[in-house]
Amino acid sequence: MDPQEIEALFNQCTRFLGGHGRRLPQQALAELAEWTPADLPSDRYGSGELISGFEEQVAALLGKEAAVFMPSGTMCQQIALRLWADRRGSRHVAFHPTCHLEIHEQQAYQLLHGLHGILVGARERLLTLDDLQRIAEPLGVLLLELPQREIGSQLPPWEDLVAICDWARSHHVPLHMDGARLWECKPFYAREYAEIAGLFDSVYVSFYKGLGGITGAILAGPHDLIAEARIWQRRHGGNLFQLYPYVLSARKGLEERLPCMQAYHDKAVEIAQVLKKFPEITFMPDPPHTNMLHIFLRGDKARLEAALVETMRATGVWLFYPLRPCQVPGCHMTELSTGDATLELNTAEIAELFRQVLQRAEA
Amino acid sequence: MDPQEIEALFNQCTRFLGGHGRRLPQQALAELAEWTPADLPSDRYGSGELISGFEEQVAALLGKEAAVFMPSGTMCQQIALRLWADRRGSRHVAFHPTCHLEIHEQQAYQLLHGLHGILVGARERLLTLDDLQRIAEPLGVLLLELPQREIGSQLPPWEDLVAICDWARSHHVPLHMDGARLWECKPFYAREYAEIAGLFDSVYVSFYKGLGGITGAILAGPHDLIAEARIWQRRHGGNLFQLYPYVLSARKGLEERLPCMQAYHDKAVEIAQVLKKFPEITFMPDPPHTNMLHIFLRGDKARLEAALVETMRATGVWLFYPLRPCQVPGCHMTELSTGDATLELNTAEIAELFRQVLQRAEA
Repeated sequence: MDPQEIEALFNQCTRFLGGHGRRLPQQALAELAEWTPADLPSDRYGSGELISGFEEQVAALLGKEAAVFMPSGTMCQQIALRLWADRRGSRHVAFHPTCHLEIHEQQAYQLLHGLHGILVGARERLLTLDDLQRIAEPLGVLLLELPQREIGSQLPPWEDLVAICDWARSHHVPLHMDGARLWECKPFYAREYAEIAGLFDSVYVSFYKGLGGITGAILAGPHDLIAEARIWQRRHGGNLFQLYPYVLSARKGLEERLPCMQAYHDKAVEIAQVLKKFPEITFMPDPPHTNMLHIFLRGDKARLEAALVETMRATGVWLFYPLRPCQVPGCHMTELSTGDATLELNTAEIAELFRQVLQRAEA
Repeated sequence: MDPQEIEALFNQCTRFLGGHGRRLPQQALAELAEWTPADLPSDRYGSGELISGFEEQVAALLGKEAAVFMPSGTMCQQIALRLWADRRGSRHVAFHPTCHLEIHEQQAYQLLHGLHGILVGARERLLTLDDLQRIAEPLGVLLLELPQREIGSQLPPWEDLVAICDWARSHHVPLHMDGARLWECKPFYAREYAEIAGLFDSVYVSFYKGLGGITGAILAGPHDLIAEARIWQRRHGGNLFQLYPYVLSARKGLEERLPCMQAYHDKAVEIAQVLKKFPEITFMPDPPHTNMLHIFLRGDKARLEAALVETMRATGVWLFYPLRPCQVPGCHMTELSTGDATLELNTAEIAELFRQVLQRAEA
């Protein structure tokens, strides 16, 4: 279908299967203005209580000495990897084959920072201690993504995670966490964020996934690393005149949605339960580790997509579109992250929506 | 004086000699929300009418084929220089000794992009055709800053500018404009922005100086350059999930303040006239080329600063603080950019404020 028709359909929908629902700029800005204290002065090129207070808050939450707010995770992570690699004296940076740096950043780590990627393990499963033990080159840094987004936000059991981190430490390899969805991990590990982050030397977290902020990221770690990261932030063009719209929405997101992570997770588990009843549907992980499910539908792609559009039109509930291609012929994928909008839908109604889609695709 | 006391004094002031006055985040967000159409959908990773429509508007205003919105000028300019240098097959990039890339970006052009800076001309004056003719190395790109901020936003006469640009074109050297304050040049050249920008292959403009936006920049140029710049924007970590607070405030600034540039310039000229009466004051350029004056005060620094604080306390008008060091002993500098707040002050009152400062410093 024409992207404009899809956009129009999205704009007509009033309820949403995933995420926090549609928040248009006008409404988001008005809500943010209402939430912001009237006498709070702006940040300025990274200075000011507005930004430094939030950096301290997040550093404390993650049990790190210091933190720096940046416009994007892309910036945080390239900088963290470069700094660790410089310190360690090796350009080899190791990560999972689906790492954001490898698949979404146009090889910036190579082109801007002269780093060499070593892909560890296999695309379709978590990286293991065994994978690490096969690495024959000295590493500048090891990046672990918690949870591993491209495989449905899977997480290693705590003991496996500890074993991996012990390996890195015993080999003097700095450990960096891609925690784009770290906030979403707490129900799985049932541990404080500081305890999870405590296994790592540095951590990047994001504020616009589960927390629903406008945009923005933080890199947390030792004082000296963060001080040096600020210089590279300036080099990247990320030391912005005013970051307050992002910082404030991040603070608001943390305040309002961090307490909801258990509810988002529980909802994903409930949805997984009802999806099991459909023979045309598979999903992973089972049960979900976080608030995310990767859902696979079997059938004719065009018929399934037409059925999705019809169902969304008929119900006013936005589901997902388009379906993404899969390795296995006849299978099509979508990613679901539960959020505020999902909590507003009864799980029985969600099951009924999937039933309608599959029935229309068959008809 | 203690920075916190100064900040408190700034927060107590109700009128301001320079700029557009104090706009706290809460108020700025509320005004932006009020200005934004309620049904306007967000941008998403650089896509969407909200951002592309504005890019097209600014490209048209500058007479360029295409434009890309980025979080910062630092990002725009490194990318532009790298792309031109790549095309031209030379890593040598030439600019004035006070170029932003040379003095404010921690040598990022070298460290991220492997470019070599060639400083053209002398710090205290504009770059000339004669300076260019002395360059013995093949250039990848020449950057000209219009106006040259660090020397009081000076501008070359139109004929000199054309001669420089002709030299570059005849030597097949791509020309990039640092137009951080291009909007402020129109009264001086009395030409359309497209005619000024038409002398250059690419142009960067900013939205938070004279236009008073929150933050944000645009790079404009040929279609192919801008398409490639978008890839490097992603590499820099500047392809943000949502840029709408910056884009909307830039649109608002352009709409509301572009028509005021003549008034800002005229006010700077008026202020310059009255400053001439004080033997302790010199300024440049005389008359001002844009809305900016670099003002030099002779006297004891501590006494002048104490007098500034007293005068600001007594009148509730924020002037400037601290004074900046100068090459010449006993001289101290401040930079004044006129704006909405300046227009609200009568020029005779401004003269009286300077008189009070100088009198208190002498007493």
